[in-house]
Amino acid sequence: MNNHAYAVILAGGSGERFWPLSTKSRPKQFVSIFGGKPLIRHAVDRLEGLVPPERVLVVTSADLAEASAAACDNIPRENVVGEPCRRDTAAACALACGLVAARDPEGVAAILTADQLMGDLDVFRRTLADSIRIAASGDAIVTIGIAPAFPSTGFGYIEAGDAVAFDGKTAFFRARRFVEKPDAETARSYLETGRFCWNSGMFIWSASTFAAAVAQHAPALLPLTQLPAACASADELAERLAALYPTLPKISVDYAVMEYHRNIVMARGEFGWDDVGSWPSIAKHFPNDGAGNTRIGLVATEDTRDSIVVSTDGLVAALGLDGLIVVRTAGATLVCPKSRAQDLKKLVKRLGEDDATAGYV
Amino acid sequence: MNNHAYAVILAGGSGERFWPLSTKSRPKQFVSIFGGKPLIRHAVDRLEGLVPPERVLVVTSADLAEASAAACDNIPRENVVGEPCRRDTAAACALACGLVAARDPEGVAAILTADQLMGDLDVFRRTLADSIRIAASGDAIVTIGIAPAFPSTGFGYIEAGDAVAFDGKTAFFRARRFVEKPDAETARSYLETGRFCWNSGMFIWSASTFAAAVAQHAPALLPLTQLPAACASADELAERLAALYPTLPKISVDYAVMEYHRNIVMARGEFGWDDVGSWPSIAKHFPNDGAGNTRIGLVATEDTRDSIVVSTDGLVAALGLDGLIVVRTAGATLVCPKSRAQDLKKLVKRLGEDDATAGYV
Repeated sequence: MNNHAYAVILAGGSGERFWPLSTKSRPKQFVSIFGGKPLIRHAVDRLEGLVPPERVLVVTSADLAEASAAACDNIPRENVVGEPCRRDTAAACALACGLVAARDPEGVAAILTADQLMGDLDVFRRTLADSIRIAASGDAIVTIGIAPAFPSTGFGYIEAGDAVAFDGKTAFFRARRFVEKPDAETARSYLETGRFCWNSGMFIWSASTFAAAVAQHAPALLPLTQLPAACASADELAERLAALYPTLPKISVDYAVMEYHRNIVMARGEFGWDDVGSWPSIAKHFPNDGAGNTRIGLVATEDTRDSIVVSTDGLVAALGLDGLIVVRTAGATLVCPKSRAQDLKKLVKRLGEDDATAGYV
Repeated sequence: MNNHAYAVILAGGSGERFWPLSTKSRPKQFVSIFGGKPLIRHAVDRLEGLVPPERVLVVTSADLAEASAAACDNIPRENVVGEPCRRDTAAACALACGLVAARDPEGVAAILTADQLMGDLDVFRRTLADSIRIAASGDAIVTIGIAPAFPSTGFGYIEAGDAVAFDGKTAFFRARRFVEKPDAETARSYLETGRFCWNSGMFIWSASTFAAAVAQHAPALLPLTQLPAACASADELAERLAALYPTLPKISVDYAVMEYHRNIVMARGEFGWDDVGSWPSIAKHFPNDGAGNTRIGLVATEDTRDSIVVSTDGLVAALGLDGLIVVRTAGATLVCPKSRAQDLKKLVKRLGEDDATAGYV
């Protein structure tokens, strides 16, 4: 265990893809159907043995800070910091850098996500530990690429260049380039080369390396890397962030820093990773009932197949269904065919704009 | 208004066809989606101007007596009488006869149902008033046949014989025979003759006529026609019914009395009648949204057609559905294709037998 190792979990998240289980005020990282605890808590707990709770931080939006702290009550309350408004991942990373630097100028931070699932946790932790070693030993920014399981058009990709010498189990490569979500044909060609990995959005860097990169490539964000150390209290920090944030550019860390930094190293993540981005994608995380159904909670099915039936409140009875999603929570029930899951975002947006239904979003 | 006219609403009912809106402990007559009040209350209120509330009685099962009284709080509490166990309609009618006779030996009772909808209430009341006149003037038992709207295989039929002379608007006929639910071909042939009406289960008779018919054709039930007059209090009646009921035969009034009574007259009911026997049958009682959907309560639909979407608690969001039934209550959500509605009964039975779901039935 590296004594300078920190983890910062970025917990923005939106409530649309898992509506009604996730909502605007309880986005995806609070969904608790996976193993009975919120995804954000999984993100903290899976660091066990790698980063102790007192060095795990959460950067989230201010309105989700209390809920995040409650979900992660094994980390100190002051480690949960709320952004007063959304300014994309570059600002969140710069703030993370400042929070770590304030605690330990030699700190090395793993920037992690709050709403994803990992398969093999031992391999995940080993990959992180190896990445921390690389990041701590120089000015590399390590990014974790995910060995792609299929030619997804839903993720960005990282192209690997030459291998980086490393005396451990994780394979590291120079990152040649970051590419946007491809079309299906391009995605297939990426996989054929064997050089492309999914961009997971996880990074590891030393605070000094990242601060220097921000100074060089995104100087507007530099104050964020210094502010936490300059504040005497959490209240003072909150006040100064509230003044600063609205003036910051809205830009992703990929565009602001990664594309320009000279020394980017990609770890090839072989631990099995899933961003569980929609209702149809959850099926593989739950046992199948033999008729192709994923059943979660108090659910009764009859002559029903290939469906996802979920209840977190009361009973759902499904009779004669095929390929349907049915999700019931205390406030709402969703029914839609699996094939229409991608339109859920649009529906939830419409619900939020309707006076009568806004409270349910 | 006939000063001897009484109405007795038979409110047995089951909870299966409108589950989860109806349940075993809140059967169909308590469903309130039609005009915002329970069907049983509609049954009382539609008698306005014909039978005053103090002469409207409800015969129900003992466990539903309190709920029935609460739903019909405009009639005296003692007018709601619970049967200690179910003994089919012959016993219920004999008890109704006794309750009316105890109040007024010259009483004439209209035996009505608690869970049906009437179209034209003025015509309904006129038909009842005319039937009461006939029943009060002799020993006829009047049964209300419903001019059939289509060749239903879901109802029994009554075949009309010769017309009965009557100086009012309602057409009366000798009832030639009662027949069971026919197959489709037989039903069509019935309609072609123009002589068959649906058997609505509504009867009108004087207490003395019905008691005499019971004495002659179903003497085992005779004590029920006399018991209420012999009891000094509601408690005493309840006690004696509890002792008597288990010994009574389980038989319908059609089989026990109607088939044998010499003088049965059928009123041809032209008021529009519906027993709203299943979810698909409710559509015609609600406005259509233009896409063939029946939407009741807080419901949002998108790209949805020919569906029935109901919520009495929280929001239901339907996306991309076709021909589906979705019903959400505080305790449960049902989702099934319209074409499977007839299997709901079976499903609810199964739910009731399952420890986990029994509380929701």
